[in-house]
Amino acid sequence: MRKGRGEVLKNITSKKIVYAFKPNMRAVQRVSPGEIVEVETNDCFFNQIEDENQLVDEIDFSMINPATGPIYIEGAEIGDTLKVEIIDIALPDKGVMIVAPNEGVLGDFVKHARTRVVKIENAICHFKNITVPAKPMIGVIGVAPSQGEYPTGTPWKHGGNMDTADITVGSVLYLPVNQEGALLALGDCHAAMGDGEVCVTGCEIRSKVRLRTSLVKGVAIEWPIVESQNSWAIVASGDTVEEAVKEATHCAVGYLSRGLNLDWEDAYMLASLVVDIKISQIVDPKKTVRACIPKKILDPNEIF
Amino acid sequence: MRKGRGEVLKNITSKKIVYAFKPNMRAVQRVSPGEIVEVETNDCFFNQIEDENQLVDEIDFSMINPATGPIYIEGAEIGDTLKVEIIDIALPDKGVMIVAPNEGVLGDFVKHARTRVVKIENAICHFKNITVPAKPMIGVIGVAPSQGEYPTGTPWKHGGNMDTADITVGSVLYLPVNQEGALLALGDCHAAMGDGEVCVTGCEIRSKVRLRTSLVKGVAIEWPIVESQNSWAIVASGDTVEEAVKEATHCAVGYLSRGLNLDWEDAYMLASLVVDIKISQIVDPKKTVRACIPKKILDPNEIF
Repeated sequence: MRKGRGEVLKNITSKKIVYAFKPNMRAVQRVSPGEIVEVETNDCFFNQIEDENQLVDEIDFSMINPATGPIYIEGAEIGDTLKVEIIDIALPDKGVMIVAPNEGVLGDFVKHARTRVVKIENAICHFKNITVPAKPMIGVIGVAPSQGEYPTGTPWKHGGNMDTADITVGSVLYLPVNQEGALLALGDCHAAMGDGEVCVTGCEIRSKVRLRTSLVKGVAIEWPIVESQNSWAIVASGDTVEEAVKEATHCAVGYLSRGLNLDWEDAYMLASLVVDIKISQIVDPKKTVRACIPKKILDPNEIF
Repeated sequence: MRKGRGEVLKNITSKKIVYAFKPNMRAVQRVSPGEIVEVETNDCFFNQIEDENQLVDEIDFSMINPATGPIYIEGAEIGDTLKVEIIDIALPDKGVMIVAPNEGVLGDFVKHARTRVVKIENAICHFKNITVPAKPMIGVIGVAPSQGEYPTGTPWKHGGNMDTADITVGSVLYLPVNQEGALLALGDCHAAMGDGEVCVTGCEIRSKVRLRTSLVKGVAIEWPIVESQNSWAIVASGDTVEEAVKEATHCAVGYLSRGLNLDWEDAYMLASLVVDIKISQIVDPKKTVRACIPKKILDPNEIF
């Protein structure tokens, strides 16, 4: 449909999905930098849970974490950075959650698997009689990797299942372009999720996500970066939290060193004063953290 | 000296220090619940660094992390909880930092050990030409453990070297009373520190800390809790971040379950929606995280 100011809004149906980020994926839509695209996403269970009488046993886990796409961004070349502005993440009228033995941080303690349907109304999630403000976010978002194949449930340098609460309305996600056209895909939105995603799900929703993509030409990044109002968050993953922290911190120290013209040791000290290491999720096949550099310390010209 | 409203301000000199939290420690001061006490603290290096010409090699590391105290709180009995209101953490005119090979998250990358003196003026830390707002905090604060001996550099259930940025002016720290009189000691203040304390030091300062202690009689806690304006933070430590996260999450789920009358599985799901798992420090002998429960979800009557 046609939007104001001459913007053409392209739409991608939630039927066009992938389950892995691969170097060669067939694009389902092409967009130009600056265009707004609306991406319909399934919930992480591929919408299998409709009510609380459905048991966790009935879920087909081979259908978990579908990502809608991929989208080919015109002009994206290897070595560029893809900029994704998150304009809107629509809230449906309900979300779903599960617990199951051996899942999440405290899987050993779970006696009974359970599904819960969470009613969403006026941007409030109703978990039983407890009200939780919605803060919608995108769990899975990524691009084609340079090589190898990453299931959509796994986070890595190409993005993927980062489950990072900062990837929310109003923030900007930067991803490395590893293949021509970048090949962006996304899904697994949450209406709310605490840092850690301790029980293994947030409030899992279907959504319509509006994005505007553009390119930072000729600038490569190693790990995804989320720009929020007050910080740059470098989002890194690893087999353990410690490994992820090392990667994120190393990357942050590099930006501080280059951006502020500090030698490496001074940049490392400064990081210890100003960088907050935050947990994104600790329940996926790899763990994800983010190193948050305040914008007051490092301005955009010093990152890109 | 005598304060307004009949409060007697007791002072403890920074010469009265301990290097371990033990069941039997000799108190250097006795205070009554409600009294304000001023505690002079040394920096974590026992004030050995005066200028940047002093090399890391010259530091006597056997003198690291002195804690001033211990303070006997009248009426504190085993099974109570000690409440510590942090009224002030005075900023001196400078702080110190170090980097050294094999120290901190990226110790493998450090080529040159270095000391830095950070000038502090009008609540701003000057790291070279970069200005960082001061947010003073207490790195080491704890009480006598129920058994065993914990060096002041180690965090555990009795508190200790938690290096938690939330332990700051205006917050309230709750510690378990494991011995008669509780036996509180503290030191290792920082003028500023990012979550993680990645290089192994914050901006290390000497300080005068003003505290008001009181007791929650007959209520025991397993791990320290920090009450801030908007959240309850359960501060847990472990050999790995993952172990610390398990402890903190388990404790948080327990509070949600008991406080909101939810069965364990529902409390675990709710935690996944509302509890933020945050990193305190990842550079000490044990790693420390905190599970932050919003006060909007759980009010004081549901914790104590």
